Amino acid sequence: MSAAVSNGQDRRDRFTAVFPKLKRELLDFVTAQGFPVDAISCFQRNLDYNVLGGKLIRGLSVVDTREILHGGSLSEDEYFKSALLGWCVELLQAFFLVYDDIMDFSITRRGQPCWYKVEGVGMLAIRDAFMLEGAIFHLLKSHFRKEPYYVDLLELFHETTFQTELGQLIDLITAPENHFDLDRFSLSKVQLIAIYKSAYFSCYLPVALAMHMAGIKNEAAFKQAQDILIPIGEYGQVQDDYLDCYGVPERTGKIGTDILDNKCSWNVNVALANCTPDQRKVLDENYGRKDAVCEAKVKKVFLAVDIPGKYTVYEQESYEKINGLINAINETPGGLKRDVFRAFLAKLYKRTK
Amino acid sequence: MSAAVSNGQDRRDRFTAVFPKLKRELLDFVTAQGFPVDAISCFQRNLDYNVLGGKLIRGLSVVDTREILHGGSLSEDEYFKSALLGWCVELLQAFFLVYDDIMDFSITRRGQPCWYKVEGVGMLAIRDAFMLEGAIFHLLKSHFRKEPYYVDLLELFHETTFQTELGQLIDLITAPENHFDLDRFSLSKVQLIAIYKSAYFSCYLPVALAMHMAGIKNEAAFKQAQDILIPIGEYGQVQDDYLDCYGVPERTGKIGTDILDNKCSWNVNVALANCTPDQRKVLDENYGRKDAVCEAKVKKVFLAVDIPGKYTVYEQESYEKINGLINAINETPGGLKRDVFRAFLAKLYKRTK
Repeated sequence: MSAAVSNGQDRRDRFTAVFPKLKRELLDFVTAQGFPVDAISCFQRNLDYNVLGGKLIRGLSVVDTREILHGGSLSEDEYFKSALLGWCVELLQAFFLVYDDIMDFSITRRGQPCWYKVEGVGMLAIRDAFMLEGAIFHLLKSHFRKEPYYVDLLELFHETTFQTELGQLIDLITAPENHFDLDRFSLSKVQLIAIYKSAYFSCYLPVALAMHMAGIKNEAAFKQAQDILIPIGEYGQVQDDYLDCYGVPERTGKIGTDILDNKCSWNVNVALANCTPDQRKVLDENYGRKDAVCEAKVKKVFLAVDIPGKYTVYEQESYEKINGLINAINETPGGLKRDVFRAFLAKLYKRTK
Repeated sequence: MSAAVSNGQDRRDRFTAVFPKLKRELLDFVTAQGFPVDAISCFQRNLDYNVLGGKLIRGLSVVDTREILHGGSLSEDEYFKSALLGWCVELLQAFFLVYDDIMDFSITRRGQPCWYKVEGVGMLAIRDAFMLEGAIFHLLKSHFRKEPYYVDLLELFHETTFQTELGQLIDLITAPENHFDLDRFSLSKVQLIAIYKSAYFSCYLPVALAMHMAGIKNEAAFKQAQDILIPIGEYGQVQDDYLDCYGVPERTGKIGTDILDNKCSWNVNVALANCTPDQRKVLDENYGRKDAVCEAKVKKVFLAVDIPGKYTVYEQESYEKINGLINAINETPGGLKRDVFRAFLAKLYKRTK
């Protein structure tokens, strides 16, 4: 095992070790209210099933960013509080996934049945999703109430939640079930969905949380961070779209369904912008149908208009543009650091999973 | 029309007139983000369908309480902000109802199909519920950010939401679908459900919001308000349970289904505490079955153990106990006023709908 991998695993283990403490605190709170044992074990099961098992990328980003901004290792208390904020991001992620899976009629998630598909859960998963969200604010209150940036943390979670919901709204409106109309698609909608559904939450939120903890107050610094992280998030979403079609399942761990699911993805929009009238007809007649033959016809058009080649160009251009934004940061003591963004970008560039 | 009714209608009209302004503000915000027209009209429809059409009791309570604490009529700005907080409580109510109806498989609400039952909505109602919740924090931020009590408002909404979800958790755990076990019921669970699912949200929240606006900071005053409002909320929930079985549908506007739905209600728990072994057998074999004959047998036991008589005693005792708590308030300038609680209690006492 290389030193880097081992180091990554150590960081992950240290982060993971914080979760049981937070879970205990939440369950103790509910117990102290005089709730019956079965209600408490129901909440516990919800937390274990839905919060654990992810890649922890967003949660770890909070800790990583905090350390880079600090310029060295954190005290025990600083580490714990950074990890707590990281777990709040993971709780938010769990909350989105639980209810997104119901709306998308998904079957599996992280290699196990979706929570609403578990025996005895069903639509109660909606309440469980809300309880995951509620847990965030409970934890923030009990650990950050006295901090001058407490209200900033609350607002960040509110705003990110609302933005992500707005992103889901456009996503689902653009491609309603059983309604096929590629005229509704556009690259500007791809961008809007990527920014609202993913970039704020996956990229801006973890960094902004760490910035608040690090004592950064300058609004211009938050604006600059956002101006870099939103393009990074967009780029990451385009990658997701690309890998949905061209990723190797053994690497990505999943089989893409965007074509079958009528998704307004980067691939189909680039194809629409570059196809002949005959190819357009093929797309109109086959995109979004839950049928493997239709899917194969769409994939053939994708290749004919050279989506992989166009993706390589897009990736290189995005990488250079984002690096330009990062290099433009004027590093000052107690302010932003270029490495925060470089670390983010390095995790994405040329990824295959 | 009596002067009192006319006055009530005027108050309602004034309160109702505030909603379109808030709706416009929310839609303008989404429009300014560059969202497509169909996404905006989808949000608008969600707001209109789910927030309007209720009795507005909770929303009006904020304004009423604010006026009593102020001791006279409010300035235009004070009125608007009180009404805004009232509408935030109505938004919270709408959010709970939209997802509660999905979990309960309800069909109608406020005389129209439940939102998730509306053509083209379905499970997207979950996202719509979240957007109603998100709207609360957006409005609070844009109107209260500069107030010293801003963070108190945020915490009140977080805590009340979490408490109400915890109440739903015990409610649904105590009476799972198609699982009949009256041993799971108890009067202490009835109390826990009433407090968590209803009292915090319906009684404490509106008053506490108005107290913050009125500049009350003394924690003991909030504690005292809670110590009175939680029993008022419990009493109101027992009334709901009682009226579910003994209310006149022409007055209540609905036909009770608690017995059919296996609800852990006050009625059945008082019956369990007072029945003979034979009556218990009837309850065990008939409670919670979706069958009119079973329901009639349960109602017969209810009458045999004199639920109506016991309710009359309960109502009188609660009324006196709560009045005692109200009278113990030591009124000081800028502090609590007894009339806040008297107004609340008067709306409930001996109500038949």
